[in-house]
Amino acid sequence: MDPSSIACAPRLELSAVPGIPIVQPGDDVAALVCDALAQNAIELRGDREQRDVLVVTSKIISRAEDRFVDLTTVDASDDALQLARQARKDPRVCELILRESSEVSRVAPNVLIVRHRLGFVSANAGVDESNGRSTSDGRGPWVLLLPRDPDASARAIRAAVHARFGVDVGVVITDSHGRPFRLGSVGVAIGVAGVPALWDHRGRTDLQGRALEITITALADQIAAAADLVAGQADEGRPLVLVRGLRFTSDEQASTSELLRPVAQDLYR
Amino acid sequence: MDPSSIACAPRLELSAVPGIPIVQPGDDVAALVCDALAQNAIELRGDREQRDVLVVTSKIISRAEDRFVDLTTVDASDDALQLARQARKDPRVCELILRESSEVSRVAPNVLIVRHRLGFVSANAGVDESNGRSTSDGRGPWVLLLPRDPDASARAIRAAVHARFGVDVGVVITDSHGRPFRLGSVGVAIGVAGVPALWDHRGRTDLQGRALEITITALADQIAAAADLVAGQADEGRPLVLVRGLRFTSDEQASTSELLRPVAQDLYR
Repeated sequence: MDPSSIACAPRLELSAVPGIPIVQPGDDVAALVCDALAQNAIELRGDREQRDVLVVTSKIISRAEDRFVDLTTVDASDDALQLARQARKDPRVCELILRESSEVSRVAPNVLIVRHRLGFVSANAGVDESNGRSTSDGRGPWVLLLPRDPDASARAIRAAVHARFGVDVGVVITDSHGRPFRLGSVGVAIGVAGVPALWDHRGRTDLQGRALEITITALADQIAAAADLVAGQADEGRPLVLVRGLRFTSDEQASTSELLRPVAQDLYR
Repeated sequence: MDPSSIACAPRLELSAVPGIPIVQPGDDVAALVCDALAQNAIELRGDREQRDVLVVTSKIISRAEDRFVDLTTVDASDDALQLARQARKDPRVCELILRESSEVSRVAPNVLIVRHRLGFVSANAGVDESNGRSTSDGRGPWVLLLPRDPDASARAIRAAVHARFGVDVGVVITDSHGRPFRLGSVGVAIGVAGVPALWDHRGRTDLQGRALEITITALADQIAAAADLVAGQADEGRPLVLVRGLRFTSDEQASTSELLRPVAQDLYR
């Protein structure tokens, strides 16, 4: 891919697209996204000069996929019980975290950092105890797990948008992660379609003609962080953000697996 | 601070402000920023509804502060020589990295991760071998160190903008960092003024009235990541980005030290 044809825009606009209802299990998020774009009469752009990116919070994908779990239905294994003692957490939540993860990275009181089955490292495998479902029907408490396959969800939204509007956009599915070393959460990409997860500058040079030191930018993560400034917390009603002004060639092979540092290269494992 | 008065904007615009020349040692970056804003007839906003943030890449601050070092003038200590063998790097560069840092975090071939004297953890203490100065005058090779006190630089720019235009803006000084676990660099804040580095949502609730799980957002880092999509690599000529649409109360005590995870809490140290 011609590196000069990608990413850096002199002007970028991010806008919340209103009109996504509170998503319920079984809803078709791709259709809801298309409806919201149509309701707002948004003319999507998707050419060599400028290609829109739609940023969707993972929470609405999870809700649509009915990734709710009623904690009263969860039996904690011995491993989960032991982890719960170390992390001072609900053993049933620890059981779900273990089921959602491939490796426990660090445990301390109130801290449980794992490698999610999707490959990224984060706290609590994204098991969300706060933004779940009401217990008003006498069941629960409920927690919400991350989407089954966010890259596939992103591809489905991209395909639906193309089918309805005839435009090739990029799609990023986001979550918020804490980080080692730095406080505060940031938006990160856990699903992509059409837009490259990494932007490889290798071969570009600085003004003196020397190779640039920082050669690979986490494009999709930066888009996610930018959109998080607009989306805030998903349940407050801005689960869809339109990012306009980026220039990139559609990448049919885009995947968030590009963003995962190979375990063997990760000195902090 | 009233949490509802901060940060989430339904619409955000980022634009590169042209007109910053290639910064030379001794230049006054705050004056250059003001000149560029005036040249472009930008009417800054700074009230309760909307407050502009100016994002400045650390590279131009470093150049103005003449943080260039001619490697031929650097004597490597025994510690630097040993580190250079482990990291397979130039011993003189390792010497500068040691001088710029308070602790070596991880060493492996081609990897040297340290705690910078400013408190953050990053590769090579930000010692920049690629975007430095030309060797055409027969000296060098040169490297470029990070600014001496980026929070102070941010405050100086904020004060100059207020003095010239009478508007209280936020200022963020950025660098690009790699990260554990995830590939690709992202823009991060290494200096702030006026704009809170962290946005504390504690006390806010979700639609069901429960406390939000993700309670503290790295506001300044997300602004830096967003601006990096526009700025790209600093020497390519977009060192100043205007971020418009955020809503926050000016924070006179803002400091990037807020973003540093206390060492005792950092499980990856």
